[in-house]
Amino acid sequence: MRIALDAMGGDHAPSTTVEGAVEAVKRFKGLSVILVGDKAKLSSELRGKEYPHSHISIKHTSETVDMDESPISAMRRKKDSSIRVAIDLVKSGEADAVVSAGNSGVVMATALYVLGKLKGVERPAIATVMPKLEGRFVLIDAGANVDCKPVHLLQFAVMGEAYAKHILNVKDPRIALLGIGEEDAKGNELTKETFKALKNLQKNFIGNIEGKDIFHGEADVVVCDGFVGNIALKISEGLAEATTKMLKQEISQTAYGKLGYMLLKDAFKNFKKKIDYSEYGGAPLLGISKLCIIGHGRSTARAIRNAIKLAYEFHDKKVLDALSHEFNVSMLEREQLVAKR
Amino acid sequence: MRIALDAMGGDHAPSTTVEGAVEAVKRFKGLSVILVGDKAKLSSELRGKEYPHSHISIKHTSETVDMDESPISAMRRKKDSSIRVAIDLVKSGEADAVVSAGNSGVVMATALYVLGKLKGVERPAIATVMPKLEGRFVLIDAGANVDCKPVHLLQFAVMGEAYAKHILNVKDPRIALLGIGEEDAKGNELTKETFKALKNLQKNFIGNIEGKDIFHGEADVVVCDGFVGNIALKISEGLAEATTKMLKQEISQTAYGKLGYMLLKDAFKNFKKKIDYSEYGGAPLLGISKLCIIGHGRSTARAIRNAIKLAYEFHDKKVLDALSHEFNVSMLEREQLVAKR
Repeated sequence: MRIALDAMGGDHAPSTTVEGAVEAVKRFKGLSVILVGDKAKLSSELRGKEYPHSHISIKHTSETVDMDESPISAMRRKKDSSIRVAIDLVKSGEADAVVSAGNSGVVMATALYVLGKLKGVERPAIATVMPKLEGRFVLIDAGANVDCKPVHLLQFAVMGEAYAKHILNVKDPRIALLGIGEEDAKGNELTKETFKALKNLQKNFIGNIEGKDIFHGEADVVVCDGFVGNIALKISEGLAEATTKMLKQEISQTAYGKLGYMLLKDAFKNFKKKIDYSEYGGAPLLGISKLCIIGHGRSTARAIRNAIKLAYEFHDKKVLDALSHEFNVSMLEREQLVAKR
Repeated sequence: MRIALDAMGGDHAPSTTVEGAVEAVKRFKGLSVILVGDKAKLSSELRGKEYPHSHISIKHTSETVDMDESPISAMRRKKDSSIRVAIDLVKSGEADAVVSAGNSGVVMATALYVLGKLKGVERPAIATVMPKLEGRFVLIDAGANVDCKPVHLLQFAVMGEAYAKHILNVKDPRIALLGIGEEDAKGNELTKETFKALKNLQKNFIGNIEGKDIFHGEADVVVCDGFVGNIALKISEGLAEATTKMLKQEISQTAYGKLGYMLLKDAFKNFKKKIDYSEYGGAPLLGISKLCIIGHGRSTARAIRNAIKLAYEFHDKKVLDALSHEFNVSMLEREQLVAKR
């Protein structure tokens, strides 16, 4: 499997991207990575590293996209950026997937423009995995679409279900709608409409789920619009960080704090691992015709390696084929249901 | 000061409400509480407790509202419910404020119907206080209005500012808009429009704030619609609980875990206190003509006491008068600004 890695994307690129790629090709069988970016910088990062040389190549590009650049201007003006060229490599068939921790707005817009959508999809969405007390769940959409209609959320449910089934290995993923009360009639205009549609069309739909229950509850897939999803994701990230910091503050102020902390070091480490975004690495942009993984802007080398791993698993398990199939079936079912009325 | 307490409201009422009221009248000078609810049950809860007897009275009601009852049906059918009668006592001037941890939808609808809005307010909103690394911040709206227009969010900013100024004692509260990126142009239709208006009309507006920054950032007031706000609040609550549980799981699995935990017991206790909703007790429904505090459905006696304390502080500092004044000034300023164009 060949991955085009936007080697200039992310706050700490290219050292983290190169390091992540090196770790990945050593670990995953049959994987090769094309580092897309400034050849001189990438060669220099690679120098002295041990890895199977035939599994990493460099595709030179002259431009990079800034983290705060607007998608439209970047797409128009930067045809030789690392993001654009990495995506072009997937379009031309030279790579099977693209991974980028760069400007996510630009990645989304470019992927949509260059690669197009899977048949039947109205809006691609970002699916991200989050930890819960027992296991994990998929949150979709985590930020691709800020203003949505019920049909979009319905489609997100189909995409999230495929992710949970094939990547999280959940046999019959339970799908819930993120809302402000469990009762059917609670929510805003969007979720109330979506609730009715999901109830009719998704056999594993378990109803509305409140924010407090996503980390405890039964849902394997939590569906929402991208504005709400992005806020949910970022609040979780921010709070996990803040609680760890608050706890450390408190610990440093108690008499036996340091000793206690030393004794609990492993527990804290495991805990951090459980809530750390870099363990999950990246989030697929589902609904695009080809595989596109978006990494966290603050990605470490470990996060990049895990984003590559996620692309590897998606490819290995042929999730896009399955998704395309599921999607067609589900769309067909939907049409039949609609026709029945 | 006289508070009408919905003594039947909350998952663990009336034992928690009576206990909370007893603690409150012992602690706060000049406070008296009218327990509204089933007289026999309330008398039985009071029996044997020590408190200044003249400071607690009972107003008998024959009905109670269930937690999942719809606001409209409860308002129509239950004129002698503890919620309704407690609010009626404020209307008639027999009490200065109402506190209820009962069905919050019913409390909101009844308060709005019986007490009406402050002059100039379009939609009352729930303001809740949340912890951040240094200090606290006000989140508004935390759930009263699910579908909002920019003018509503503008008004929430004015209300949140008054709360932060008078109750959190922040001299010039910094106001931020909850969104999905710091850039001015990021957000959904609602927040993009609101951003422009806040920039023109609120001198302490510091721009958009992302979910991850609310616990670290500079904002004293975070403004959003009630759907997003409720999800933000509930996710924070759920995650704080889940992280504590996850950490305990990890601790129980390490060799020196129990010893380490014992040494850190105080730190964990202080930490829990910092993130525990019951420390904050209740959330005012701002924009109503009289003082109305909504408690958490799962309120403990401590949470009830703190909700009463919050009502006491609001009354003591004459926040509603200040809010009414601020509101008129701010509305006047707005009209002037609009007239200028």
